[in-house]
Amino acid sequence: MSEGRPREGGDAEATLDPADWAEFRALAHRMVDDTLEELASLRERPAWQPMPDDVRASFREPLPLGGEGSESVYRQFTERVRPYPNGNLHPRFWGWVQGNGTPLGMMAEMLAAALNPHMAGFDQAPALVEHQVIAWLAELMGMPPETSGVLVTGGTMASTIGLAVARHARAGFDVRAEGLQGSRPRLLVYGSTETHGWARKAAELLGLGSSALRLVPVDAEYRIDVEALRRAVAADRAAGHRPFCVIGTAGTVNTGATDDLRALAAFCREEGLWFHVDGAFGALAAWSDALRPIVAGIEEADSVGFDLHKWGYLPFEVACVLVRDPEAHRAAFATTASYLEGAERGVIAGGIPFAERGLDLTRGFKALKVWMSLKAHGVRAIARLIEQNVEQARGLADRVEQDPELDLLAPVPLNVVCFRYTRAGLADEALNAINREILIRLQEEGVAVPSGTTLAGRYAIRVANVNHRSRREDFAALADAVVRIGREVGDAVA
Amino acid sequence: MSEGRPREGGDAEATLDPADWAEFRALAHRMVDDTLEELASLRERPAWQPMPDDVRASFREPLPLGGEGSESVYRQFTERVRPYPNGNLHPRFWGWVQGNGTPLGMMAEMLAAALNPHMAGFDQAPALVEHQVIAWLAELMGMPPETSGVLVTGGTMASTIGLAVARHARAGFDVRAEGLQGSRPRLLVYGSTETHGWARKAAELLGLGSSALRLVPVDAEYRIDVEALRRAVAADRAAGHRPFCVIGTAGTVNTGATDDLRALAAFCREEGLWFHVDGAFGALAAWSDALRPIVAGIEEADSVGFDLHKWGYLPFEVACVLVRDPEAHRAAFATTASYLEGAERGVIAGGIPFAERGLDLTRGFKALKVWMSLKAHGVRAIARLIEQNVEQARGLADRVEQDPELDLLAPVPLNVVCFRYTRAGLADEALNAINREILIRLQEEGVAVPSGTTLAGRYAIRVANVNHRSRREDFAALADAVVRIGREVGDAVA
Repeated sequence: MSEGRPREGGDAEATLDPADWAEFRALAHRMVDDTLEELASLRERPAWQPMPDDVRASFREPLPLGGEGSESVYRQFTERVRPYPNGNLHPRFWGWVQGNGTPLGMMAEMLAAALNPHMAGFDQAPALVEHQVIAWLAELMGMPPETSGVLVTGGTMASTIGLAVARHARAGFDVRAEGLQGSRPRLLVYGSTETHGWARKAAELLGLGSSALRLVPVDAEYRIDVEALRRAVAADRAAGHRPFCVIGTAGTVNTGATDDLRALAAFCREEGLWFHVDGAFGALAAWSDALRPIVAGIEEADSVGFDLHKWGYLPFEVACVLVRDPEAHRAAFATTASYLEGAERGVIAGGIPFAERGLDLTRGFKALKVWMSLKAHGVRAIARLIEQNVEQARGLADRVEQDPELDLLAPVPLNVVCFRYTRAGLADEALNAINREILIRLQEEGVAVPSGTTLAGRYAIRVANVNHRSRREDFAALADAVVRIGREVGDAVA
Repeated sequence: MSEGRPREGGDAEATLDPADWAEFRALAHRMVDDTLEELASLRERPAWQPMPDDVRASFREPLPLGGEGSESVYRQFTERVRPYPNGNLHPRFWGWVQGNGTPLGMMAEMLAAALNPHMAGFDQAPALVEHQVIAWLAELMGMPPETSGVLVTGGTMASTIGLAVARHARAGFDVRAEGLQGSRPRLLVYGSTETHGWARKAAELLGLGSSALRLVPVDAEYRIDVEALRRAVAADRAAGHRPFCVIGTAGTVNTGATDDLRALAAFCREEGLWFHVDGAFGALAAWSDALRPIVAGIEEADSVGFDLHKWGYLPFEVACVLVRDPEAHRAAFATTASYLEGAERGVIAGGIPFAERGLDLTRGFKALKVWMSLKAHGVRAIARLIEQNVEQARGLADRVEQDPELDLLAPVPLNVVCFRYTRAGLADEALNAINREILIRLQEEGVAVPSGTTLAGRYAIRVANVNHRSRREDFAALADAVVRIGREVGDAVA
């Protein structure tokens, strides 16, 4: 294919559009067909497979000065890239917390990239799509209609924006102008010991310092101890510091626990603290009538960060931060009014509201896949899938509890199951080694991809289920494989 | 279409995969065909068009509880969204600095969203694609092979990461743990008055405060006055502050000026300061043998942030930050070694290097469009297009200089042209009003989309050319239209 070459004629100008649109169209059809065939047959393939050495080595190519054309590059993609992903497409992938994406989401990404609108704002339909999506997401979270929000890359950025707004709103001085440099009471933020690593990263990035993130103990169900929080805040105030924010978690990464969000909201009101909820995946429980009680109180948050590329089933990247007070949101990020200059007519007439709600000025059309997915599938169907994932997790927990060779290591309040293979007479250390090996073999054999975590010194095989392709039979296959491999590994050790 | 509904059979589980793959495939083909037809015929349509009121109002729909299916949503996209973007696809769009994207880039986004790999790292081919792309980008920038980097959303995030690494490397204390809170010498960062707004946003986000960003005057060519910088740093040191970073700009947003990067690199070496280059679009001049002298010295930077969705012609979002010292990069963001636990085998064997180079943990496969584009088109063809954009800008500048009704308002060292319609006897105030109106009418008539800026009190029509679809005839059409509308507006005023 000849895109990138000059058009015919000595003086002609070049372009990256195809020289032959029909030829490119045929290739694009092939890309779609191959892709859909892959997606429709995922179940027949391993959940993950290691790369052969020659494939691994092939990604050290010299700088491509001359073009080899789209056909050739696509062939290399099919041979060297597509067969060796980390596996989260697959019906038996439950590692970390990674969604699958959907065929509709994938086509929406193509449409978004083709239209390629600049999503700082502007007077354009794509901006209205994002406004609409944010209004729907606020409604689903039970937040008021005037709630502000913006779509971002992921949960870490969403919650970092929430924390940045909190810092600006509650610092007690002009933190944007003055920064945190200088001699003042130390700003402190609180979360439980189960708070995800984003909070440390955000505290560091924002210049608060990781030492300004106070981690409060949890109860036996991995939920923040609200009385311990109360004591910590009081002690810090007494020491002359300035507590400004509490982070509640809806769905911890380790076990799927949700803090008592109502209690945290009430505490924050009493204390004049900003209440941020990290609901990376757990916030989506609010979409389901049956599961909403688990996250009750989330609608009282000052800000909520959550992903749509996890339990919203959409392809990476898309997450959302919602901020109850739109003025607080804008005040933390908007720069000068000069951006709005000449704003009554023309392309810039819409202003650049989205650039004033976060870090990025240039933004892509992430909103399209959310809009298309919500409208095409409907909220009820997505909520039903979320419930299905919870039922599947509880089903796996039941199987684990009934099987004498398996041991449930944490409560299963949502969609995360932590368990291990066990046999009589072995101490934790030996069981940890066996279960680590089971996890690796599950992956290497391509049976399934759970990940691992350690709970109170016990290594757990961890299933985090945000997979719209999983069936009950897949969890049964996992449990069977854990027992089978556990016996093999255990016998070898014994 | 019936995706999202339960499969047949009372006890069956639901999925968001299509119930009928052939039906979905037919729709996907239609999406591709319509899209390519739109792209191939862009030139026949207006560069931008305002939305009718009924279209505008249509984006306030109730929450979609029930699904209407993919066909219906796609139809709405074609009717209500696709016709009304902000226009940056178009051959005569040169507003702000916004790229077009390419057909290959658009299909790469589809492939990336379908495979949907989790790009924190992991032992997978997509991670190797990103490593490969970063190595190529470092080579193109003239930086050493061990240079670290990561692909991010845009130039603001890329340069914010650069500044965060600088802060950590040069603070003189453990800024991650302690934060900036406390009584210490004030950390200061320097750039010219032409530095893009990202720097203020970054200084605010990082807790440095906008007052810690010192803006140094520029010369007549809009380049930083290095002697003034030297004096400012000396005065701040004498006042007990701690200068830690200088930002050089390759391609200012207003006029396309590039600071004397060699002089800045030398100054930073002398002073022990971190040297960051914001090369949002200008850094890409380094890809061209002919243009590289303009950005000479960029290869000496400690860190460089630049976009690939502007002058790299790729669809949003993709930008890159390169950091010369890989340990400094990792030290600023990596969390605990526990992430690498069990790292020798299985899916996590690759570690999560990309999550340790920036804020995001979950990351999408932005690298694929870069990899496919560089290999398919080749660096030389892309560099040739960059040169073509510069030639087109200089051609427009020549036309402006030859036309007595047009006035060039700034030098044209790269791809940005600032000019205005003029007529004898009118003061700046009147000309400013006329040129504002010309700009709006150009957009409203769909002739072209430049944007505006103000230089020394004079309102300029500003053309920033990163458009691979533009031809010389498009710039001639713009100049003709400016004169025509200028006469109309000027006559009405007079």
